[in-house]
Amino acid sequence: MRIVLAQLNPTVGDLAGNSSKIVDALAGARSLGAELVLFPELALCGYPPEDLLLLDGFVSEIEARLQDVIDASGGLAVVVGMARREGEALYNSAAVIEDGKLLGYQDKTLLPTYDVFDEQRYFRSAGQRRLWELAGKRVAVTVCEDIWQQAGKVPGGRYLMDPIEDYAALKPELLLNLSASPYSVGQLRVREEICRHTARALGCPVVLCNQVGANDSLIFDGSSLYVDASGELDVRGPSFEEKLIYVDTDTEQNPQYPSVDGNREIYDALVLGVRDYFRKQGFEKACLGLSGGIDSAVVACIATEALGADNVVAVAMPSRYSSPESLEDAEQLAQALGIELREIPIEGPFQSYLDLLEPQWVGRDADLTEENLQSRVRGMILMALSNKFGWLVLTTGNKSELAMGYATLYGDMCGALGVLADVAKYNVYGLARIANTHKKCVPERIFDKPPSAELRFDQRDTDSLPDYEILDTVVEQYLEEGQTPEAIANTYGFDLMLVRDLVRRLHRSEYKRQQYPAGLRVTSKAFTKGWRFPIVQSWSEGSS
Amino acid sequence: MRIVLAQLNPTVGDLAGNSSKIVDALAGARSLGAELVLFPELALCGYPPEDLLLLDGFVSEIEARLQDVIDASGGLAVVVGMARREGEALYNSAAVIEDGKLLGYQDKTLLPTYDVFDEQRYFRSAGQRRLWELAGKRVAVTVCEDIWQQAGKVPGGRYLMDPIEDYAALKPELLLNLSASPYSVGQLRVREEICRHTARALGCPVVLCNQVGANDSLIFDGSSLYVDASGELDVRGPSFEEKLIYVDTDTEQNPQYPSVDGNREIYDALVLGVRDYFRKQGFEKACLGLSGGIDSAVVACIATEALGADNVVAVAMPSRYSSPESLEDAEQLAQALGIELREIPIEGPFQSYLDLLEPQWVGRDADLTEENLQSRVRGMILMALSNKFGWLVLTTGNKSELAMGYATLYGDMCGALGVLADVAKYNVYGLARIANTHKKCVPERIFDKPPSAELRFDQRDTDSLPDYEILDTVVEQYLEEGQTPEAIANTYGFDLMLVRDLVRRLHRSEYKRQQYPAGLRVTSKAFTKGWRFPIVQSWSEGSS
Repeated sequence: MRIVLAQLNPTVGDLAGNSSKIVDALAGARSLGAELVLFPELALCGYPPEDLLLLDGFVSEIEARLQDVIDASGGLAVVVGMARREGEALYNSAAVIEDGKLLGYQDKTLLPTYDVFDEQRYFRSAGQRRLWELAGKRVAVTVCEDIWQQAGKVPGGRYLMDPIEDYAALKPELLLNLSASPYSVGQLRVREEICRHTARALGCPVVLCNQVGANDSLIFDGSSLYVDASGELDVRGPSFEEKLIYVDTDTEQNPQYPSVDGNREIYDALVLGVRDYFRKQGFEKACLGLSGGIDSAVVACIATEALGADNVVAVAMPSRYSSPESLEDAEQLAQALGIELREIPIEGPFQSYLDLLEPQWVGRDADLTEENLQSRVRGMILMALSNKFGWLVLTTGNKSELAMGYATLYGDMCGALGVLADVAKYNVYGLARIANTHKKCVPERIFDKPPSAELRFDQRDTDSLPDYEILDTVVEQYLEEGQTPEAIANTYGFDLMLVRDLVRRLHRSEYKRQQYPAGLRVTSKAFTKGWRFPIVQSWSEGSS
Repeated sequence: MRIVLAQLNPTVGDLAGNSSKIVDALAGARSLGAELVLFPELALCGYPPEDLLLLDGFVSEIEARLQDVIDASGGLAVVVGMARREGEALYNSAAVIEDGKLLGYQDKTLLPTYDVFDEQRYFRSAGQRRLWELAGKRVAVTVCEDIWQQAGKVPGGRYLMDPIEDYAALKPELLLNLSASPYSVGQLRVREEICRHTARALGCPVVLCNQVGANDSLIFDGSSLYVDASGELDVRGPSFEEKLIYVDTDTEQNPQYPSVDGNREIYDALVLGVRDYFRKQGFEKACLGLSGGIDSAVVACIATEALGADNVVAVAMPSRYSSPESLEDAEQLAQALGIELREIPIEGPFQSYLDLLEPQWVGRDADLTEENLQSRVRGMILMALSNKFGWLVLTTGNKSELAMGYATLYGDMCGALGVLADVAKYNVYGLARIANTHKKCVPERIFDKPPSAELRFDQRDTDSLPDYEILDTVVEQYLEEGQTPEAIANTYGFDLMLVRDLVRRLHRSEYKRQQYPAGLRVTSKAFTKGWRFPIVQSWSEGSS
């Protein structure tokens, strides 16, 4: 069968825009010679629509827009993701269309309700599964999670049934899967395994079309797949871009797209995350504080690639504690990127706060208060530029800092989007190397100097934190692998008291994270999406 | 049967503290002559534990703590809420205990996954329902939502089965319900109706024990219930306090507790919300900006009642635009409450920012930038005091402002807890009247003057917002009743363009709300919990 996988980038809730994108894709697919066109999950409304689904009129408008797609489907079989209502229930569905006629709906059976997913908040599970006769073949239509249970890729014991077992009895000749599966490191390989497993289980080819594009914290990579009946990967579509991917299941000559390595993949994901956050809201220009450190350097590189050099304004905000090297490094980076650099020293407002407030605490030593004041003056300067010029502030903190609360609320935590919120410090260096691939932008000195917030004389991150190698390992194992402090200390030979202390500190800073901006997600467990812990709780104080 | 409803206030995750509270309650119940003691849902871990449930060791520690309860149950029947694991699945369960022996578990059947609830994220639904022989009676044990479906009080079409139908066939002589049902206006009456409905459906008495206490945004009121077999309300326990409530189902002489009116109820809820946020984290002292307006006046009153006058520091931060009356009113209020008032004028830092930044935007008019700067200077002053002295900042904005984004990120939105985050402006005045009941604290002039942020000369809220009567009606109807702009305009005779514009503005300020502190919930739909909308979406721009 000649199939086009329409790997599209919808905007959440833009029903007119998304349906016209779908109609355009049908025309494109026709000119490529397609018999069947497959779209992502919930393509008509974009994923995840969240509580928009509960607004009166939203789902009925989706159903109305489906008619545009049906009308444009002449000569084609089309399978497109949408939400629909039947009686009092909503379904996450695939509309199955052929040559101008709606054949029916295949509803999603397995509704993920874990990590970043809340589908049981909205949808009812499919009552039945059947095959569809499309372009002369008996076709199974599945939606995302429906094929994950059989492949053993969902948290244990979650579902009491498995749609693939039903399909095995029906003996399909082809299985289609509509996905909106967000990016995280390693996820491309997981999806590939699932498709291969499904193809082998059913003895038929599997074609998966995944959403591309970023919506708030979630980045969807596309990377749509075609696996043949023997379970061999024939095609993986490009990542992080829209594409009509042509696949012919009757021939072995299918197109190939380049794959990317670990850090490049993360880098491309973040570029798309920044670009879509701005583009989908109609913003053009970003500003950020450029400290001369590695984090803001990498954010400047990503923003420049995402928005163009003319749309990024870097602001150096030196203080009495800043080293001259930091300013030089910031200047060198801005010049290499071709972005504007403004220098706004914070001494004036900082001293003004000290003059005002020191009478309030006569006789007390300087402490975090004075450090936070400096960080907050910087945040206020960026927000003032944002307010005056309509730029969005990019937040530059990394995941390691966010884990420890080693960041100032209303200071360096200010902004619209946390670009590195899910990137551990160690990986930030890797991303800087990627940024330097084609042209050396990030000065070597930034890689070499020990990380410092420069909020007091001779400060080093290691004054307050363990080495990032230890910290990043603990955070990764605790978040992504669900390991206890005891298990982590054992496996890596870390001091148990240290690991317990880091975990306590991690939970104690929950109040800060809950006021963090939207933050791009690139790992299997991000703080900014899919992490739901109480602020007020005692468990982590004692037992963990 | 002689029953004690142990209406307790657990701390989330404090398994040792909660189990010892439960053991103490057993002793208390024994001395009251109880045959059976009923506890709230998930009493051993506190509700809602959120992703603590997924941490390795958390559920097994709950199961271990259950033994303390079993050991202390000599001579009593005990039904206590807990989480338990069976194979790979977790259950939200009631442990049924008699005289030192665990008889078994009744798992929860209906798992709410809407609004503030995420139970299908964690739990599997009960496989079966049975009766228990306790103190000589055949007893049905249900957990919270289990009795809501039959009474028609859950969002339509959500559950495919109804536990009460099963129980009807089993003919129980008594139904117990363990609840963790959060407070919102009107909710006490809803729970009463549900119990009456259930009692009539089964022809047996219904006894419901509800959690009391606040956990982050959610406030639990307690207000436990006993309804006799004819569906008459016999007892409603006190609201917003811990209590062992003695009920005898064989006699008509049961104790009565006073009920409270609408605004008093909300006021008491907020006092508990503030008190528990501090107490459960070990904080004592709060500070807040006292502007001379109604919002901060009410927060000062609530904080004083919750924490004591010695533990509240009010800070007046006048600017070049503040009226002398505002400062006088703040002083009068602070004096009446007996709280410390510090006066810290913001002119110094404000002018210092203007000196620094005006060269950045030569030739541009003053706009929101300069207004936000003032609000942010105030936020920074409060945060500096918080950092230096270990006080928590109370956020004073109301729900109407939060709906419109009529608030400054990192300015008046700073803080640890949004006390009025779910109270519409109109209701803030009602709460001020409650605060003045015993002693006139809030000066009359604060009620009379038109609301103003005082961030420029002669500013009024109505320069930027419609009258609060219109705004509050639109917000309430849109959030709590799920009405479309068209329906709201029709029902209330408002201009449709105005209503649409308010709804657009409401959604456009989502980015601000997602950085708001935890905010106490007192209505059926709060922005700070149970409201999940994307920041980047187009639906509200066009269609709503």
